[in-house]
Amino acid sequence: MLGGTGTVGQRFIQLLATHPWFEVAEVMASDQSAGRSYTEAVGSRWKLSTSIPDPVAKLRVKGPGETLRSRVLFSALDASVAGDLEERYARQGHFVSSNARNHRMNPVVPLVIAEVNRDHLDLLEKQPYGSDGGIVTNPNCSAIVIVMALAPLHRAFGVEAVVVTTFQATSGAGYPGVPSLDILGNVVPFIPGEEAKIESETHKILGRLGPKGIAPAEFPLSAHCHRVPVIDGHLIAMSVRLGRHVREKEILEAWRTFRPLRTLGLPSAPEDPILARPEDDRPQPRLDADRSGGMGVTVGRLRRCPVLEWKFEALGHNTIRGAAGAAILNAELLARDGRL
Amino acid sequence: MLGGTGTVGQRFIQLLATHPWFEVAEVMASDQSAGRSYTEAVGSRWKLSTSIPDPVAKLRVKGPGETLRSRVLFSALDASVAGDLEERYARQGHFVSSNARNHRMNPVVPLVIAEVNRDHLDLLEKQPYGSDGGIVTNPNCSAIVIVMALAPLHRAFGVEAVVVTTFQATSGAGYPGVPSLDILGNVVPFIPGEEAKIESETHKILGRLGPKGIAPAEFPLSAHCHRVPVIDGHLIAMSVRLGRHVREKEILEAWRTFRPLRTLGLPSAPEDPILARPEDDRPQPRLDADRSGGMGVTVGRLRRCPVLEWKFEALGHNTIRGAAGAAILNAELLARDGRL
Amino acid sequence: MLGGTGTVGQRFIQLLATHPWFEVAEVMASDQSAGRSYTEAVGSRWKLSTSIPDPVAKLRVKGPGETLRSRVLFSALDASVAGDLEERYARQGHFVSSNARNHRMNPVVPLVIAEVNRDHLDLLEKQPYGSDGGIVTNPNCSAIVIVMALAPLHRAFGVEAVVVTTFQATSGAGYPGVPSLDILGNVVPFIPGEEAKIESETHKILGRLGPKGIAPAEFPLSAHCHRVPVIDGHLIAMSVRLGRHVREKEILEAWRTFRPLRTLGLPSAPEDPILARPEDDRPQPRLDADRSGGMGVTVGRLRRCPVLEWKFEALGHNTIRGAAGAAILNAELLARDGRL
Amino acid sequence: MLGGTGTVGQRFIQLLATHPWFEVAEVMASDQSAGRSYTEAVGSRWKLSTSIPDPVAKLRVKGPGETLRSRVLFSALDASVAGDLEERYARQGHFVSSNARNHRMNPVVPLVIAEVNRDHLDLLEKQPYGSDGGIVTNPNCSAIVIVMALAPLHRAFGVEAVVVTTFQATSGAGYPGVPSLDILGNVVPFIPGEEAKIESETHKILGRLGPKGIAPAEFPLSAHCHRVPVIDGHLIAMSVRLGRHVREKEILEAWRTFRPLRTLGLPSAPEDPILARPEDDRPQPRLDADRSGGMGVTVGRLRRCPVLEWKFEALGHNTIRGAAGAAILNAELLARDGRL
Repeated sequence: MLGGTGTVGQRFIQLLATHPWFEVAEVMASDQSAGRSYTEAVGSRWKLSTSIPDPVAKLRVKGPGETLRSRVLFSALDASVAGDLEERYARQGHFVSSNARNHRMNPVVPLVIAEVNRDHLDLLEKQPYGSDGGIVTNPNCSAIVIVMALAPLHRAFGVEAVVVTTFQATSGAGYPGVPSLDILGNVVPFIPGEEAKIESETHKILGRLGPKGIAPAEFPLSAHCHRVPVIDGHLIAMSVRLGRHVREKEILEAWRTFRPLRTLGLPSAPEDPILARPEDDRPQPRLDADRSGGMGVTVGRLRRCPVLEWKFEALGHNTIRGAAGAAILNAELLARDGRL
Repeated sequence: MLGGTGTVGQRFIQLLATHPWFEVAEVMASDQSAGRSYTEAVGSRWKLSTSIPDPVAKLRVKGPGETLRSRVLFSALDASVAGDLEERYARQGHFVSSNARNHRMNPVVPLVIAEVNRDHLDLLEKQPYGSDGGIVTNPNCSAIVIVMALAPLHRAFGVEAVVVTTFQATSGAGYPGVPSLDILGNVVPFIPGEEAKIESETHKILGRLGPKGIAPAEFPLSAHCHRVPVIDGHLIAMSVRLGRHVREKEILEAWRTFRPLRTLGLPSAPEDPILARPEDDRPQPRLDADRSGGMGVTVGRLRRCPVLEWKFEALGHNTIRGAAGAAILNAELLARDGRL
Repeated sequence: MLGGTGTVGQRFIQLLATHPWFEVAEVMASDQSAGRSYTEAVGSRWKLSTSIPDPVAKLRVKGPGETLRSRVLFSALDASVAGDLEERYARQGHFVSSNARNHRMNPVVPLVIAEVNRDHLDLLEKQPYGSDGGIVTNPNCSAIVIVMALAPLHRAFGVEAVVVTTFQATSGAGYPGVPSLDILGNVVPFIPGEEAKIESETHKILGRLGPKGIAPAEFPLSAHCHRVPVIDGHLIAMSVRLGRHVREKEILEAWRTFRPLRTLGLPSAPEDPILARPEDDRPQPRLDADRSGGMGVTVGRLRRCPVLEWKFEALGHNTIRGAAGAAILNAELLARDGRL
Repeated sequence: MLGGTGTVGQRFIQLLATHPWFEVAEVMASDQSAGRSYTEAVGSRWKLSTSIPDPVAKLRVKGPGETLRSRVLFSALDASVAGDLEERYARQGHFVSSNARNHRMNPVVPLVIAEVNRDHLDLLEKQPYGSDGGIVTNPNCSAIVIVMALAPLHRAFGVEAVVVTTFQATSGAGYPGVPSLDILGNVVPFIPGEEAKIESETHKILGRLGPKGIAPAEFPLSAHCHRVPVIDGHLIAMSVRLGRHVREKEILEAWRTFRPLRTLGLPSAPEDPILARPEDDRPQPRLDADRSGGMGVTVGRLRRCPVLEWKFEALGHNTIRGAAGAAILNAELLARDGRL
């Protein structure tokens, strides 16, 4: 683990504690944390409702300069340091599966959602980190939910235009993150940098890998981002114009049959990556974010949009499906493909 | 007052308590309330942070069948009874300014936002309620905020397409209304009937009154409605395509100069019906809903939309600007025009 | 299951779905639900973040008059009907483990927390329901947390006076329960009947069973009850005067060693029924209510009270430890003792 | 104003904007703010639902070293700097009315609630700040509410023991203050230093001023402090043992007749400093904190306590009655007494 004490780092440690393939052998964090036990280093910032897993609790935290021995390094580093550190570890022959935003738009770094664009992992061969080292990234927490909902439609019908409005949970801003005076009984219609990230990352993920790298998807995408008083789970209201006229049941069928990892036996892969609920008032963060251990994306309220033809809601757990769980699933895919 | 004990009825009574032109002379409510003092009738359902105003507190509440003597009847009746009762009182020579939805789409009933379409009040001449009686309605609480933000743009540039996503406060659902288990730390992506109301009411208000009645505006409008854990204030994320290419400052200027009531001296008319805030993170319900006594609509975050050219946020107080205050302002306008 | 569609009923069904000893063979609910599948009957009132368990989802719900075949009936019936129905089923030879309040203070009905007063189960022999039938009850959700924290102290040192102030979650009021306008950003300092229940039930549970029945404990106990905007988990601030002067570590030791069920192998019994956390700012509902599957009570902040000698905080999950889980644990204990 | 940009400083500026006697002529803040306009200095930290008042908005903020010319300096300084700065300004001949905690327990500094212990202002004569300078402080936001509720009872019957449990709003922790991940759907049973402050400040305020200074009140007082997800308004559950047996109506009468400032014409003095509401479920923060412009304390639920004879709830607005408004009322009292 790189950066294991923050909100996303804690999720990594929680999820890896019971993982059948990986285990947390070492945690690297900032200089302040280095040398202390993980429990001391994280202190009262541990904000999950499960306890710190036992073997990790007593691990001595390593500092940014220390040598690591793990083959795979999961990174929840802060963007202020992730850029350099991840590259350094990659050059030292580690494989970095990163949730940090720094290398996401780097042309030789795959930005991958395991179910959507695993073919982009071939970019790894273009990386300058030696035969063993590499960096793979997963998208922004909102972008993941949006792309999961769009990918089956893009594949089947083509996507031509998208307007999304996000309802984002406060855990996405880390800790201390959003002050309570800003969000109790309130909505904040702004998250710095988020709208641009959603637009560029979606285009890269849904782009095509060719000999010259990734040609991003070109449909216009507009995002309105908001923080709401919810702990976990990003809800997204989406309007979409597709490449051809389709019937409601074709869309539902595209979602229902979207199970590209089903034969691979990856431990974190949800059985139904996308589940369409039939109720009028779903998905809801409190009821649906935890589906399939937080790895499932739930959609609902599919109906006609007078402007862009179709509209619906999509929801995913922002620190699991949208962060730590996504990075772990990417590493599982690489391990299964023999790339680690 | 018709229906003075619910969430909107309480707002009417609070706002009218200090009104310079109108006073609450009588309150009509359901049979259960009839005969009791207003304080007894409303009981623990009074949910405003100011006390029940003194003269109203002791008023004996009248029942649905009783004769009323007030010239103007403000109606916050439940839709289950508003249709018939409002017509009966209109035929008896009262003037009804109603927040109920029943007559909003009636072709001879004006659906009016005082700043936007006061010319529609000429429809009153087509009403079959005798020379004194009449019914005027104000729109749905979300529709008012949306139309206030659109009207200056529609007038100046034409509106060609609109996608809106609402973040609606729980006071809009009345009392007991939304159960806390549904909304604490959660978002509900559904409000029954709301999306259709926003679409049809917006078209009527922005339509043209001709000899055959109102020809509704025809641009496509798509609404995604959500309930959020906020007490008061509906926030709306909007994407808009206009009739011609404009610059950002033209839009700001259209909003800034939209003061159609400024010379009329109406007590409830806000000085700036629309105020554009320059900050990145405004408007917010907790900070902006109360502007101008809850009668101002605040907009912000105007920026390019990759799909529909422009996007921005709009906010208004749902039980004042979006309900009781809107009905009172309509009555002020009628009084000032000598129509009462 | 008796009364399986409400908030506590849903918890029973969720917890029993993976129970190694019991399974939900039939669900009885109100006449409106009877004849429909459980999924249809519960409809959108299902408010847990896990799905309705598969075998129960399709069960046909039975009505209040129908014959049941299960040996043990878990009751989450509403108090308006529980009194008669539970007695009727007991007379028919069923064993009823009830969360309803109706029979809790009945002199021949044991009011039991499995870890605290299992000896009271001998009262079953005085019940007039035949050789097979019987009723056992568990306490009110707040009383359980309070008694769990007090019992080890009462046993070791005697309790002489207690003042408690509760911070109660909204799930304790059922669905629709607490209106959001009452509790968003607010605290309600009143829960009907709750303070009296806490006082009388605590005295009965900590009382002694003698030949004439239960002699209730006699120390004065004062409860201040409040509803707070929390979904699950009742937090209690407690001041306690003990029967003798003790040191802090004696109290911690009394809690730490309180494991009266540890050798019985009951599936729902938490390993540490009471866990004292050392941090200044724990227990907290969001972080601690789910400990040991929601069956653990967590205490903290033990310190001197200038008025009553000691004060501390206690926390438990109100619909698991404080309701469904408590009733299931009681039934496990009876099963293990061969009383079923 | 000293320290005008924080949560309490903003309240001072809001309240003084319409004050008939005082006006904000200068604002001193930290070095980062110095030299900028107040609007620039406060930036997006302004968290009140009214706008920054016009004359203050453009004031150039002064730095900690600058000379001030105002007679009265209201201090909302952070405790890290208030100790020295307030003394320096007092020695320069200013009169400081401070909400900071630094000098509250200083034996020659009066800790005053205008309605309760104005006689303590005679301590000013013992201060070493020259003939013009002086420091007066108001208590902690929770202590004020507690003392307001106790003072009439202490005066009439004597108070012998008190147990209080607080439900404190997040605005009491300033901005950014409490992280949303700590408080959304949660309660935090700890506020650093708060319990000790409540106990010592209450004793000083209810103490007697004699020739040797203030002899603090001696009854035992125990406080349990909690942060709850409420924006404004501290609610306190109180159990009290009085010096003699009284009837309920005697207590109500003591509160009702407690109007010691009623003939003085002080602009911020509430007509009813203490109002007992008769409803079962009041006071509530959302409904009652704003009474009398936020200066009234509301009590309710008076009933027998099995342990300490009486129990009830008390509520006050923490940044108005419990901070800025209290300091302003103290200054009004001094001005009216000719002490400024």
